[in-house]
Amino acid sequence: MHRILSDQLPHHVGETVTVAGWVHRRRILSSVAFVVVRDRAGLLQVVCREPEPPGEEQVVEVTGRVVANAAAPGGAELVDPVFTLLGPAEPPPVELFRPELKASLPALLDHAAVTLRHPARRQVFAASAAAVGAFRAALDRQGFTEVFTPKIVGTATESGANVFRLDYFGGPAYLAQSPQFYKQTMVGVFERVYEVGPVFRAEPHDTSRHLATYTSLDAELGFVRDHRDVMAVLTEVVRAMVAAVRPFGYRVDLPVDVPVLHFRDALRLAGAPEDEPDLAPEHERALGEWAAREHGSDFVYVEGYPMRKRPFYTHPQPDEPRWSNSFDLLFRGVELVTGGQRLHRYADYLAALAERGMDAGPLRTYLEAFRHGMPPHGGFAIGLERFVARVTGAANVRETTLFPRDLHRLAP
Amino acid sequence: MHRILSDQLPHHVGETVTVAGWVHRRRILSSVAFVVVRDRAGLLQVVCREPEPPGEEQVVEVTGRVVANAAAPGGAELVDPVFTLLGPAEPPPVELFRPELKASLPALLDHAAVTLRHPARRQVFAASAAAVGAFRAALDRQGFTEVFTPKIVGTATESGANVFRLDYFGGPAYLAQSPQFYKQTMVGVFERVYEVGPVFRAEPHDTSRHLATYTSLDAELGFVRDHRDVMAVLTEVVRAMVAAVRPFGYRVDLPVDVPVLHFRDALRLAGAPEDEPDLAPEHERALGEWAAREHGSDFVYVEGYPMRKRPFYTHPQPDEPRWSNSFDLLFRGVELVTGGQRLHRYADYLAALAERGMDAGPLRTYLEAFRHGMPPHGGFAIGLERFVARVTGAANVRETTLFPRDLHRLAP
Repeated sequence: MHRILSDQLPHHVGETVTVAGWVHRRRILSSVAFVVVRDRAGLLQVVCREPEPPGEEQVVEVTGRVVANAAAPGGAELVDPVFTLLGPAEPPPVELFRPELKASLPALLDHAAVTLRHPARRQVFAASAAAVGAFRAALDRQGFTEVFTPKIVGTATESGANVFRLDYFGGPAYLAQSPQFYKQTMVGVFERVYEVGPVFRAEPHDTSRHLATYTSLDAELGFVRDHRDVMAVLTEVVRAMVAAVRPFGYRVDLPVDVPVLHFRDALRLAGAPEDEPDLAPEHERALGEWAAREHGSDFVYVEGYPMRKRPFYTHPQPDEPRWSNSFDLLFRGVELVTGGQRLHRYADYLAALAERGMDAGPLRTYLEAFRHGMPPHGGFAIGLERFVARVTGAANVRETTLFPRDLHRLAP
Repeated sequence: MHRILSDQLPHHVGETVTVAGWVHRRRILSSVAFVVVRDRAGLLQVVCREPEPPGEEQVVEVTGRVVANAAAPGGAELVDPVFTLLGPAEPPPVELFRPELKASLPALLDHAAVTLRHPARRQVFAASAAAVGAFRAALDRQGFTEVFTPKIVGTATESGANVFRLDYFGGPAYLAQSPQFYKQTMVGVFERVYEVGPVFRAEPHDTSRHLATYTSLDAELGFVRDHRDVMAVLTEVVRAMVAAVRPFGYRVDLPVDVPVLHFRDALRLAGAPEDEPDLAPEHERALGEWAAREHGSDFVYVEGYPMRKRPFYTHPQPDEPRWSNSFDLLFRGVELVTGGQRLHRYADYLAALAERGMDAGPLRTYLEAFRHGMPPHGGFAIGLERFVARVTGAANVRETTLFPRDLHRLAP
């Protein structure tokens, strides 16, 4: 069979062609039936005289003649069809032909194998794939190298909290909460690296924005002056991701100059007490509104978070070391990216760990990178599903994860 | 600082420039010293009169004048340098300036943070990254969509053996041995999908080609006639990967027509008894030698493996159902890829599971895809580290994994 895709139909008017896909909708009228076929490129209409053409979700091959019809999707349709059944189907648990899927979130997720076929659902994950492609392409253009680092680790990455423990050939091991240590180590090798991969958080919180595992888009780069160089790379990466989702109908406002607030000023702008150690969700929302209103921007950087709220590898702000050279990037009022400059001198690591009462012993192999020479460096991590949730307006990050995992969900 | 990379030096003869990197080698002679600086683009030579220039692995910024020198790497070198120390370093545990790293495999892996900086080590992983990029690009060109599927699963993927068990919020869960079920499910959504991600195997074997976790390059596509359509896509993908590693000096022979042997004939060619259920390593080696000798090919397909050695979702060979529509692709005498056509009818799945005495219950959400219509489909999985090991001639797959994990190794 030489099959053409649905979006090619208008180029074949007058010819006999073969298409294949799922029956998206079947409508039987008194003297004619309409069968809408869904393939990876879209939808096409088949007009037939058979009294009983294949029903919804049957997988069919259809050979027929293409005729122009301004009322059909794409301006052409198939007539005088011959159907071949490739894959039989029982009726789906939800009606996929409706413009909007009528299903509760649990039903949507329980029946993901079927509900993901809905064009609106598929669109979300097509945009997601395009965004990841743009992340990589933007970094490839800037001399980054892709790396793959272990997801099973011997010591909890940053803290002992919220870590999944597993049985590793009879001994304990953990699932990596982030590739942080490894991407820093790899700056010593390639200077600029990125990784796209799963991270694991044993989140005991049942919220609309936390999952037990998600896709982290990580980057790290050496030879920076400070975190502002990291932010410049991040802005270009996000610009590429925003451009990539545009063809799917998602519009995001990212001006040439993304506003940057120091944490101190962010607290004031959000109306928070000046001794708050972190931004609460309502503060982030207020800052998002401010950025949209004052700068026409869906994004706003907050830099300089207090050192005591950031991990031990965080570089302090040189002129005022209670602040840090770290930042968050808020997207429509929600934290999307965390990043910053890291310490790079071995002695600074030993001092930072001692100050926090942390044992350097389990970090020995990580610290070896700094012991033997590392440049000033920094990086960031973007939560993919959170990015796509904000882009598509999904209320819950579970809607932008193919098969989400949380406190209560381990299937499908 | 506006820094240039080492490979740009020859374009700046006569100018004063700034470079930055690690001191790769320092040689102090009686009246002059040579400092070779390593950056992400390569090596460059600095000639200086200082009695004590920075030592090996110190991270430096160097400003100096570029002069032509045919004896220097790239044909130019830096003179009258001013060094700025960016990152102090203790002497490295191995001498990175030697053309070949003198270190045992355990030392190489224990000190990965430093040994990966060696140009020969770095080269391996740069080629690996290029190969992955080529995998994706080849599939993107053919209408595939990238997916991210869960690595924590509620039921062991294909069998209960060699699976890592973890504590999931107080209950049991497992690390996914492959994205098999999910990539098949996603054929129902996008028709053609791929995933690059970690897979986990609790391999009790301590061999040179098994790891507890590795990077799997997975693809799956719908609307195939049989496994030969899958092989055609795979051949194009491997062709792209082979082309991508070429600029790194790795040469691989992949003719236009890759030889294909039926399992039955492969046994005979390898001199194995005709009732053998699988190919042993020595048989694979013999087939690799045959392919090189007779076809000038580093690759050979073996198709038609006995059904009883393949997983339950395998599609039988229609004319002789004790054989399967599955295949392996051997690369230089070692299995690199496993793939094949899968069952696609719900009734066939129920029958296959019953025949093997397997319970369909735990597979309910996976089987839902087939229950509601799936096209004939198939796919394959390439082991990235194994591919790179064969390409680079590494004896052990641990040499082509940044931070390997095995029965005995959980660090760094």
